[in-house]
Amino acid sequence: MATPPSTAESGGGAASSGAGRDPSARVLRPPTDYNDWCEVAHGCTRKLGMKLCGFLQRGVLDERGSGGIPGSLGTQQSQQQAGGGRLGGADGTAGCKGDGAEMDGDPRVHRRTEVNFSNLYARDLLPAKNGEEATVQFLLELMDILLSYIRKTFDRSTKILDFHHPHQLLEGIEGFNLELSDSPESLEQILVDCRDTLKYGVRTGHPRFFNQLSCGLDIIGLAGEWLTSTANTNMFTYEIAPVFVLMEKITLKKMREIIGWPNGDGDGVFSPGGAINNLYAVMAARYKFFPEVKMKGMAAVPQLVLFTSECSHYSTKKAAAALGIGADNVFLIKADQRGKMIPADLEAKIIDSKKKGMVPFFVSATAGTTVYGAFDPLHDVADICQRHNMWMHVDAAWGGGLLMSRKHRHKLNGVERANSVTWNPHKMMGVLLQCSAILVREEGLLQGCNKMCAGYLFQPDKQYDTSYDTGDKVIQCGRHVDIFKFWLMWKAKGTVGFEAQINKCLDLAQYLYRTIKNREGYELVFQGEPEHTNVCFWYIPLSLRGMPDGEERRAKLSRVAPKVKARMMEAGTTMVGYQPQGDKVNFFRMVISNPAAMQSDIDFMLSEIERLGHDL
Amino acid sequence: MATPPSTAESGGGAASSGAGRDPSARVLRPPTDYNDWCEVAHGCTRKLGMKLCGFLQRGVLDERGSGGIPGSLGTQQSQQQAGGGRLGGADGTAGCKGDGAEMDGDPRVHRRTEVNFSNLYARDLLPAKNGEEATVQFLLELMDILLSYIRKTFDRSTKILDFHHPHQLLEGIEGFNLELSDSPESLEQILVDCRDTLKYGVRTGHPRFFNQLSCGLDIIGLAGEWLTSTANTNMFTYEIAPVFVLMEKITLKKMREIIGWPNGDGDGVFSPGGAINNLYAVMAARYKFFPEVKMKGMAAVPQLVLFTSECSHYSTKKAAAALGIGADNVFLIKADQRGKMIPADLEAKIIDSKKKGMVPFFVSATAGTTVYGAFDPLHDVADICQRHNMWMHVDAAWGGGLLMSRKHRHKLNGVERANSVTWNPHKMMGVLLQCSAILVREEGLLQGCNKMCAGYLFQPDKQYDTSYDTGDKVIQCGRHVDIFKFWLMWKAKGTVGFEAQINKCLDLAQYLYRTIKNREGYELVFQGEPEHTNVCFWYIPLSLRGMPDGEERRAKLSRVAPKVKARMMEAGTTMVGYQPQGDKVNFFRMVISNPAAMQSDIDFMLSEIERLGHDL
Repeated sequence: MATPPSTAESGGGAASSGAGRDPSARVLRPPTDYNDWCEVAHGCTRKLGMKLCGFLQRGVLDERGSGGIPGSLGTQQSQQQAGGGRLGGADGTAGCKGDGAEMDGDPRVHRRTEVNFSNLYARDLLPAKNGEEATVQFLLELMDILLSYIRKTFDRSTKILDFHHPHQLLEGIEGFNLELSDSPESLEQILVDCRDTLKYGVRTGHPRFFNQLSCGLDIIGLAGEWLTSTANTNMFTYEIAPVFVLMEKITLKKMREIIGWPNGDGDGVFSPGGAINNLYAVMAARYKFFPEVKMKGMAAVPQLVLFTSECSHYSTKKAAAALGIGADNVFLIKADQRGKMIPADLEAKIIDSKKKGMVPFFVSATAGTTVYGAFDPLHDVADICQRHNMWMHVDAAWGGGLLMSRKHRHKLNGVERANSVTWNPHKMMGVLLQCSAILVREEGLLQGCNKMCAGYLFQPDKQYDTSYDTGDKVIQCGRHVDIFKFWLMWKAKGTVGFEAQINKCLDLAQYLYRTIKNREGYELVFQGEPEHTNVCFWYIPLSLRGMPDGEERRAKLSRVAPKVKARMMEAGTTMVGYQPQGDKVNFFRMVISNPAAMQSDIDFMLSEIERLGHDL
Repeated sequence: MATPPSTAESGGGAASSGAGRDPSARVLRPPTDYNDWCEVAHGCTRKLGMKLCGFLQRGVLDERGSGGIPGSLGTQQSQQQAGGGRLGGADGTAGCKGDGAEMDGDPRVHRRTEVNFSNLYARDLLPAKNGEEATVQFLLELMDILLSYIRKTFDRSTKILDFHHPHQLLEGIEGFNLELSDSPESLEQILVDCRDTLKYGVRTGHPRFFNQLSCGLDIIGLAGEWLTSTANTNMFTYEIAPVFVLMEKITLKKMREIIGWPNGDGDGVFSPGGAINNLYAVMAARYKFFPEVKMKGMAAVPQLVLFTSECSHYSTKKAAAALGIGADNVFLIKADQRGKMIPADLEAKIIDSKKKGMVPFFVSATAGTTVYGAFDPLHDVADICQRHNMWMHVDAAWGGGLLMSRKHRHKLNGVERANSVTWNPHKMMGVLLQCSAILVREEGLLQGCNKMCAGYLFQPDKQYDTSYDTGDKVIQCGRHVDIFKFWLMWKAKGTVGFEAQINKCLDLAQYLYRTIKNREGYELVFQGEPEHTNVCFWYIPLSLRGMPDGEERRAKLSRVAPKVKARMMEAGTTMVGYQPQGDKVNFFRMVISNPAAMQSDIDFMLSEIERLGHDL
């Protein structure tokens, strides 16, 4: 509901008594003019109110004429005289929802006009006096640049990147000067800088970009992120982020329900990435078993040890190093040829560590390993954790998205037995970077291990329920709003939309697997159908086909992927990652998480590898 | 330089050989048609190339007619037939820079048309077939909402917030439903959700929002963040963020120069906030003195202790708790009545800890404390650190901005002797959240304590200089691009622009201090002119004026600020924070970091406090 009359009256008193020297302050009155009646209209039920308001607005528009550009000063002033620029209110603060802002010829719609930006500077934009028109025009000009970029990103005839070495870009290609100076540049130059920044960047949303687990450019998510930037607030208190804090709460609960925890109970938070969330899991577990660690440090606790598979993400080791546990105290469990943790080896290593006087307290199982896309056997891991009274964490940063799919979620069976789960919507669910959640089954542990009760932020005598202040759950103080884009995508797609998107990516991986299996010049790194979208393979150039396995072939083969990748980046036509793993020399890892990809893109990627690598 | 002919040829070969089933793939030829010639034009020097291209485009536009809407399918197809939609290229990838896209009547400019969003869904947007027009229109509609919001944010007659309790928002005010469902919602509903999200949020950019150290809405910064979201990439490798990685490198060097380190040498990174950067400082110091901690944990090192002032930010304790040092091992040093650390107490506590067998290794001095805005005496702290061979960190998260001001930077004298500095451009420099840097004098320590050499990201056999891959410097894996908005603001304002902005905020704090000093009903929490923009004061309602100091008055006074703040949020007219500190009961803390604020806004804030609090 837009400002109802009663609130407007009390707010009006405030504005009038405090107007001071500010010329734009206004006195609100009982409903006597257009805008006050409009507020009454807003107080009515939705449809009636909108109709009333539409009626009122048509009248006023006629009265004022409708030829003006809304951002221009003349129009702005007349709006303010009539009560605070309410006609500009497509944001709904005081205007109507669905109030016809998209109507053709509506002066409230912001339109581009011809502006010479070479004489304008940042200081001419808002909050500068008379800065409104320049601001609107500058942002519309930028928007045009971004819209062109977006359209081209989905256009397969556009290159993914125009590769340059660091020294080339540092030297300043075609006048693109990265250096910072004392004096300001014109807005025209700033717009050129924006174009150049996009030009020399990498189109991670391109349908043929397969280089990273996070890719794609979801339009709803993008809209959400633009709004988030515009709102520019901070998640630490309900006070300044009421809507976002509630969206986070609701979304986390939904995620816990999907994991399978009863009633979706538990705790959680969005943090700046899976690595930090894995660190939170270790912190929560350590605090659960040894709460004294918070105040006394590791000196007060026995020698803690952690377990994770040799195929797991490196962040568990990073966490152990940071937290004062020591990276050496992360024991790596053997994985089978598919990359799945071997439960027998886990239990053997736990027992062994106990014999050595260590205290095993934490197992990180992986649901979707980074390279192979393997899912550890979660029920087996849960059984072991139960037997040894250990915390079970599931790093589902990459695989968590599969929980949204009725067809594929069985791969995470047992995740409901975990104590904590890392789940990155910015990977398999296509949310823009950054969007990553830690979910903890027991409420209060995150708060327990992190809270320091800063008086200036978390005043206990606030007028609202301060349990909604989430800032003391994390090691951060300020926290970026990562939730909105995700919430908006969920609204726009529904759970079924995410499901369809994820199923499609997995189908494409199947397609790639089957294509490679029957195609000359490829070897799969592991046998069997992919469980996730990771497909790992070697491309075998003509010169190596038929060569017997051995040191020479391995050495030569290890140089193929880097060489093809380098040529690929020079060509800028597609991107896919490679790496060695264990005793396997450099191989390609295809991952598909971009809903824009099609079978033809998979075909294209393979033919590119062949084109670029056949002569090696 | 836009794609030169030679590169286009090699890329073209790629496209042709791999076109597969993709209907939009095209074959690039030697320059025979318009687009190829345009590429030749781009290969010329800037001005000549632009002229040539303009000439070519005029011809082609005439040929094709110019009445179409560029996003519409018809136009798109004709563009693709002619060589990949090059005419839409305001992003500069293949189009010209400054190629006249702002021209009136130019069909390349994206324009809004009447669209019924109630029949459109997320699935109708790109990458959907024929999704381009819907995508452009949806984003333009959103942009209109955002532009209206931005204009109103700077309009003083707009309320800062429309306060609701959590349960009210959760119940769904006026149909604003926060719950997520299985099925998708129409794009019309999504746009309504966007309006509602802004409507029930807090306008942190409003000229009368003084509640947080981070506020304001810098238009250039906002443009930068919109572009960052659109680029949607990740800082961990040069491979996928070449431009942003270099911008970070250049900006960090500039910041180190401003700190005063010789040649700007050293290290650093942008991380998700000051608290994490303070944690990095502790980690770097610990690793410097005890590198074995990384692999062996705290068990391998003696009992480490840290020192910081009792007025410092709570993040030092959070870091100690997280890192396994223990929050109890952070010793709080006494501060004087202005909130500055007392060096004698620091040295006494260091000596005392040594006597007790502890190992003092780290002092965090603060440049701009959170509540009082105090600057610790950095030279004195540096002397002590030197005598005891300890790491000196300066938490300048809040005060770092003053380094940009020739008038105020003397308050940080001695910062050049620090081993590390935290500096948050998202506070005093008005950059959008999040933008926070840790700067370290010795290169390699961040890498040393954090690196785990993940093979799938940091391949040593890449074709470029991999020292530009920054991902192993941090505990994160993926890292959001926080640099671009800041870099762009620096370009647009110049160093002198930041200086002017910061000086202005400090002038306003002076104004507030002098106003309060001479105004009835106020008491300053500490005497003397403010060093930063923090002004701390009690408002004394009529009923307490003349009451003798004592328990009763203190108890009553402690309830004033919370009550006024609650009424302020209900009124939604201004926002300022409060807290107790030490033996001082709840007082207001004014901070001014929003360049939009004026003297009249300060006056307004005071008169609001009086209006809302006089009857208490």
